[in-house]
Formats: sequence, C-alpha cells, structure tokens
Amino acid sequence: MLLPHLDWKSSKPISLQIQEQIREHLERRSLRVGERLPSTRHLAEALGIHRSTVALAYQELWAQGWIDQRPGSAPRVRARLAQMKSVTVSKKRSFDWEALASPAAKEALGAHRELARNAHREGFINFASLHMDPRLFPVEEFRACLTKAMKKGGESLLTYGDRQGFRPLREFLARRMALHGVETSAEEILITNGSQQGLDLLLRMVAQPGRSIAVESPTYSLFLPLIRLKGLKPLEIPYGEDGMDLSILEEVLKRHRPSLVYTMPNFQNPTGRSASQANREGLLDLCAHHGVPILEDGFEEEMKYFGRVIPPIKAMDRRGLVAYCGSFSKVLFAGVRVGWIVAPVPCIEQLLALRHFSEIMPTMIPHAALHEFCERGLYDLHISRMHRTYRKRMQVALRALKQHVQPEWAQWEEPKGGYLIWLNLKAPGRRKPDWERLFEEQGLQVSPGNLYSPSRNHPSWVRLSISLLDESQIEEGVHRLAAALKQLHEKGAR
Amino acid sequence: MLLPHLDWKSSKPISLQIQEQIREHLERRSLRVGERLPSTRHLAEALGIHRSTVALAYQELWAQGWIDQRPGSAPRVRARLAQMKSVTVSKKRSFDWEALASPAAKEALGAHRELARNAHREGFINFASLHMDPRLFPVEEFRACLTKAMKKGGESLLTYGDRQGFRPLREFLARRMALHGVETSAEEILITNGSQQGLDLLLRMVAQPGRSIAVESPTYSLFLPLIRLKGLKPLEIPYGEDGMDLSILEEVLKRHRPSLVYTMPNFQNPTGRSASQANREGLLDLCAHHGVPILEDGFEEEMKYFGRVIPPIKAMDRRGLVAYCGSFSKVLFAGVRVGWIVAPVPCIEQLLALRHFSEIMPTMIPHAALHEFCERGLYDLHISRMHRTYRKRMQVALRALKQHVQPEWAQWEEPKGGYLIWLNLKAPGRRKPDWERLFEEQGLQVSPGNLYSPSRNHPSWVRLSISLLDESQIEEGVHRLAAALKQLHEKGAR
Repeated sequence: MLLPHLDWKSSKPISLQIQEQIREHLERRSLRVGERLPSTRHLAEALGIHRSTVALAYQELWAQGWIDQRPGSAPRVRARLAQMKSVTVSKKRSFDWEALASPAAKEALGAHRELARNAHREGFINFASLHMDPRLFPVEEFRACLTKAMKKGGESLLTYGDRQGFRPLREFLARRMALHGVETSAEEILITNGSQQGLDLLLRMVAQPGRSIAVESPTYSLFLPLIRLKGLKPLEIPYGEDGMDLSILEEVLKRHRPSLVYTMPNFQNPTGRSASQANREGLLDLCAHHGVPILEDGFEEEMKYFGRVIPPIKAMDRRGLVAYCGSFSKVLFAGVRVGWIVAPVPCIEQLLALRHFSEIMPTMIPHAALHEFCERGLYDLHISRMHRTYRKRMQVALRALKQHVQPEWAQWEEPKGGYLIWLNLKAPGRRKPDWERLFEEQGLQVSPGNLYSPSRNHPSWVRLSISLLDESQIEEGVHRLAAALKQLHEKGAR
Repeated sequence: MLLPHLDWKSSKPISLQIQEQIREHLERRSLRVGERLPSTRHLAEALGIHRSTVALAYQELWAQGWIDQRPGSAPRVRARLAQMKSVTVSKKRSFDWEALASPAAKEALGAHRELARNAHREGFINFASLHMDPRLFPVEEFRACLTKAMKKGGESLLTYGDRQGFRPLREFLARRMALHGVETSAEEILITNGSQQGLDLLLRMVAQPGRSIAVESPTYSLFLPLIRLKGLKPLEIPYGEDGMDLSILEEVLKRHRPSLVYTMPNFQNPTGRSASQANREGLLDLCAHHGVPILEDGFEEEMKYFGRVIPPIKAMDRRGLVAYCGSFSKVLFAGVRVGWIVAPVPCIEQLLALRHFSEIMPTMIPHAALHEFCERGLYDLHISRMHRTYRKRMQVALRALKQHVQPEWAQWEEPKGGYLIWLNLKAPGRRKPDWERLFEEQGLQVSPGNLYSPSRNHPSWVRLSISLLDESQIEEGVHRLAAALKQLHEKGAR
C-alpha cells in the first residue's frame, strides 16, 4: 500500500485524512481481503506522526467494518467487501411490493401517476402548473435570514424543537391573521409542512369508515385522493359564481352529516372564483346550525389584487367551528414547505398527537429563517411586489383572452386575484374533443377539468394557471390556445 | 394623523415605511373607522416624495383590507377592525373538537400524553430521554454548510424540489450504505422527515383492516401507537439476548402471516441488545420462506463502538425483501429531521405517492446542508468524535452500575454500542413497587418498561439512556439510582 499523503494545511484532521485515503484503496479493491495493513507503529513512524493518530484512523475503519484488529497483530482487510459484491437482487425471485400495498395505497399510486402528467415539458408553455415563478424569489434576502436565524438559534434549531412549530413564527402568524380579521394566538396555531399536511392531519383526525367530507365541485385536485386514501367519502357541493350552493349544502348536511365541510372562499382552485360575503356568512350559519365544522383553505389569502378584500370565514367564527389552513407556498415559495393551521386548542392538541407518531415534529430551521424574513418586513415587501407583478400578468392574460378567443370557442370569468382562470371550452359538434391532446399539439400544457371533481364531471373545462409565466409567455400561451381552438372550430364548421 | 417619519438611510423602501407606520396607527386605533387619510397628492407633497410611492403604500393597505379607496376621493379606514373586535369564541357555545376525533385518534392522543411524561424536568438527571447531547453539536460547521448549500442551490432549494429527496444526498447515502455492506443506488433511496416518517409511510402502505405487524417485545415505544393508529394489529415476538425468538416468529408467520416484520438488530430500543449474525440470517431466511417483508430499523447503525461490526440484515438481502430505515437523528442531530429508506424501487414509488398527498414533499434546504456537511468529511469526523465520547460515557455508566448497584437489586447486559441500558429491577418482597415514583423521589428520570410492549408486560424493567448526559451526570445518576434501590431493599429487609 502507498503511504497516505498528508495535507498539513488542510482543516481536515490527519487521522481523518489517513482514514479516508485507506478507505479509497479498499473501495478500489487495491487492498484485498485478508491483506495486512501496516501496524500503527510502522505507519506512524513512516508518516512521522503520533501512533494514537494512526490508531484513531484504524479504530474508525474497524468500527465501519472495513478491517479486523487483533491486539498485537497488524490489522487486516475484512471479508465483508467480498460478501457485498455477491448481494445483487435477482429480479425473478424478488419480493412483490406492489402486491403488498393496500387497495387504497394502490389507488393513490394511480392518482399520483395521473397528476405527474402536469410535469413541465421542454418547449411547452405551461398553463398547468400552479408553482410560483422562481424568477421572483428573494433568494439573497432569504439566505441572509437563514444564516442570521442559525446564528441566533444555534443548537436549539438542531435538536428537537417546538412540536407546534417555532414559537416566534407562530406569534407572527397570529398577528398576520389579525390583519385578515382573525383574532387568534400562538397557542391556536400549528405550523405544518405546507398546507397540504394541514389538510392531511385534519382528515386523519376524523378518518373512520362510513364518514364523509363535503367538498366543492370542482375542488383542489390533491384533496380528493387524500379523502379516498383515508377511507372517507367525498360529497360534492356545486361551486357557483357566488360560492358554494347553500341549498344543496343544507340538504347534504341534513342527510349525510359530513365530518367536515371543505371550502376555498378566495380564488378557489380550480375556478379562481371567490365566494361573496353573503355566501360565506350563509355557509357559516348552516354549519353552525348543523354542528358540522368547516375546513377553510386560505391558500392564496394574500393574493387579492382586484376589488374589495373579503375577510376569511374564520374571521366571523364565534364558535371555534372553523379550522383555517394557510400557506407561504403560493405567495413566497413552496420549497420551505411551511403552512399553518388556525384552530381551537383542543383541535390543535389532537393534530399534534397524530403528527408526533408520523414524524415527531418538523425541522425548526426553515421556520426560524421565515420568521427572520417576516420580522425584517421582507414578507410585506415581497407581497407588494407579487401584487404588482401578478396584477399586471393577470391583466395581460385576460386582455389576450378577450382579444384572441372568440366567445363561441370558450368562456371564462375574471378572477379577483390568484393565478387561476377556469376555462369552459365549447366544441363545434356533438363529439367531445380530446382537449389535452389538442393543446399539446400547439405546445401548450393545461390542467384538465376532470382532475377536480370526484365524479369527473368537468370534461370540457381546463384550468389555466399563470403563476409560472411572465407577460410574454402568457401572451404566447394565449396565442397557442386561440390557434388550437380556431383550428378546431374551422374544421368543425366545414 | 401625524406624518410618517421617513428613514432615508434604511434599506426598507419608502412605500413600505409609510405602509407600516400607517398600519401602526390603525392597529393602535389612533385612526378610527371611516376616518379620512390624506390623499396621495397631499401626503406626497407633505413628504416631498413622488405620488406613486404613496399610491403604492395605500394600494397595499387597501389590499390587506385596512382602507377603502374610491377614485377621486381620499381613502378611508375600513369597518373591518370593528368587526374583528366582536369576534371572540364563547366557550359555552364552542364546537366540541374532541368529540369529532375518531376513536383511533383519541387513543393516539392518550399515548401522546403518556409519552409526554418523559419531558425533561429541572434538577433531574434525565435517563429517560434518547435525545442527543446538544453540547456535542457541530453548530458552526453546520451553519457554514447551510450557507454554502444555499449559495450553490439558490432558488432550486426554494421551489418544489426532488420528491424523493435531494439527489446528491441520496447518492452520498448510497455510498454510505455500501460501507455497511448494502449495495444500493440513489433510485432505491427515499429521504424522509426522520426515520419516524419512514416507519409511518411503510405502515400506511400496508394499512388495511385485519392486517397485522410482527414486532419485537419489547420494541420502540413510538412504533406501537402508530400501528394501532393505522388499524393494524401488533404481534409480539420475544426479543432474547441473541435477537428475535425465531421459533416463535416462525409460528406467527405460519399462523398470522403479518404484513411486515419490524426489527432493530443493532442496540435495540429499549434493550440495547444486538442480534447475532446467525440470528439475522435465520430471520431473513424465515421471512424469505414465508414471503413476508422485513422492516429493518437501523436507527443507530453507526454507533457501534465495542467489538466486531455486524452488517445489517439488508446487506444479506438478495430478494429485495428488506426495507431499511436509517437516520441522522441519533448520531448527528435530530433537528434537521432527516432519515431515509432503502428499498426496491416499486416500494419507493408507492411510498412517494402516499407522501405526495400528505405533504407533497420535504424541504430540500436541510438535505442540501447535510450533503455539504457529509461531503466535507465533517460527518465522518463527527462520528469519530461521537464514538470516542460515548465509548467512554458508556464505560463510565457500566462501571458505575457495577460499583454501586448490587446484583440482587437489578440486572443488566453490556451493550455493544448505542446509548441504552435495559435494567431488570428486583423487588424485595412480592409487591411490585412504583418504580417511576421511587426514582422520581431521588431526582431521577427513567423510562418505564411498560411503554415498550403492546401487552405492557415489562413492569419491572426500566430503560436507561445516556445520550443526553456527560460522564459526571452519568455518575451522579447511577448514584441516585443505587440510593433509591438501596433504600427500597433495606426497607424491604426490615
């Protein structure tokens, strides 16, 4: 064996340098099983270092199973490398994991694969994704906050932290909710891994065979497989221009008594619609009367940029009937995976217990960084910027649609905020075209309406999202959309 | 209203300064509902700034629902503040969330509260907690890696990342597993929020009424409530000095055909025992023969510091029968919440789908920081340090026990690594003492044996963990332990 080369300038300890270089030899098999390594004394003399340094390196190699050490005799390369090589899973005789999965898990895998079709494709204009535009991320500012937060928090951020989420961030969120008319406190807030985990925890809390959840139709596409995964039954309530259809909701509450009513009053996904103040009040009264709690999804609460702000339903909640889910993902960035639930303490405690057993707790590091970011006023600043940017982008989208898409090809409403336009497509003849393929041929990705309801009853609708696109991309996208529809209708006319 | 005071040196934009100061007035109610704010023109002139800057501030206050704006007229304070005040949840009429929770969720809450008793108490020596000693955390090194990782990754770490986990870290883990004799690749690795999420995902995958899971008795206390939460039945297999009782396991495999066999071959929690090579081979053969997969928990794989390393069961797995869960939590620190699963691709895909609907994906930030940390050799360095430190701490603990605790008071085995000693306590008379209270009176926290098996059949055992304690604390703890037992037995003798 060649002598290890020692770099005395390196910050890396000598013993580690020795350990790593010997391991390289072992990995490259240039040291064979059973082969002798120099004794600690010999290697120490050859390198002109203390024996204990070599001994430490050998100790580690031995603890990692590379070498055998017997007192008095030189260490030898162990046989386990040989064994490693022999272990290769033979496909034929390999265990069938797919067969092991429960029917519910298999169904979730199917839904997962269907949604994967939304993945971005090269050269396409992507109206399908609801991800935020990374070009708008305040990366430098956030990194500074991350570093600062680690300086402040130190080891407290590296050990098990606050199960409910970094307290200063919860306090900030309580103040933030007050801006939206919601009076709450850090005790009533649970920080989650994105609002998705909030939805999951609330469903886990009520999950029981025979129970059901009332959902808007159409509704958030990732919520439906989650309901089924928990063995719950979705009950569809049509979502009109004004909000949820309250007369149908009342029927459903009376007849089925669902465990929760799930609603997105602002810039609803996928329709982009917002429920009126009257509709929100009516919904709350109905649920209060029937004693059915509300799961309010405020995923884009901050993204109001046309018209008057309407406070969330939670702002009118006098009975602690509403569990509110919020998120940083659709305003700032999703990669920190931070959302929150605002709910009465007994609900929060229950959710905490459920999360304790499924992941113990989240990491405090992104919480602390976000808190620093918010306290510096950078969050407000970013929201202002997003409002300016997307107000314009949405105006561009709506103008382009008006200009290039004929009313007899498609219809849509003008959203008051958010990123979504819900497009009702018209076919020239009786036959329903394959809309997705039609747009694909024009290099356009859209999200098919059938993803958004359990009964898949929106075949001639598509969801357009402008979250990922700048103004010129939006223009180009609408051009391609119009071209596809024009072609279809001219063919149809012939 | 007083004029906003503008700080021209601040990095904070003028429009944001105006916005924040007006908001303060609104929060302090020094501006009343309906009250007029100065027009953009007036305020701009008064402050000597451009109108658009004021307009921007007003725009934001309006978007946040603070003020009304009508073209041509000055903005007014909105009525929603008044509404906010009136909303306070009246306890009497408030919704009963506890009643809403499913029986399984309620049971989990109970288990959660029981485990909360392990929480650290002031002035106590804490042998109960298995948290790592924060005094050993390489905080500075990790912070440097975090900053560096953000520099390298930029916005790619802030948007939705790799659902399976940061790829370079997965590649590092694949190489790491090779050191333990496991041949794998990044494709077969899923990074999880601590190994706890790995356990949760695997149980979610198989969860179905009537199914069961074979567990060691005693076993990991956080795994048992998780099994019940999923509606699964735990089947207890006694864990002897050599490992799982294979004859009983064979019976159980034949009769009940569990969906998984859960095992911790190294420094088992709570016994600290390690299964022999022969026992591991026997376990694998049995499961292969009956076609039942193994969930191997390698939570302390790296923490071997006495005697010969035995490779994990996964290292012998030729049929892809083993799903292996690893973790950084018990070697480095738990606060990053990073663990991993090594399993065949079809299993990983299924788990990915399940996680997609419950939280979409984890944040890449800690993954990238850990990767930087590992690539710099700091992980190896830390492990060496931990080996040195805990080898000594464990020696101190075992020596102190031998010195101060009489064989007729208690018995224990000497673990080959890890942090745990499983103490079998002897009562002087027939009556079983309340061991927890006995030690509490001496200012000592221990973890009661009954937490570790579904049948709660270890009433006279306690788990001692040295993970949180330095040598002098361990000495003191053993003194207190011995004092408590001495007292008991002297009383008993009289």
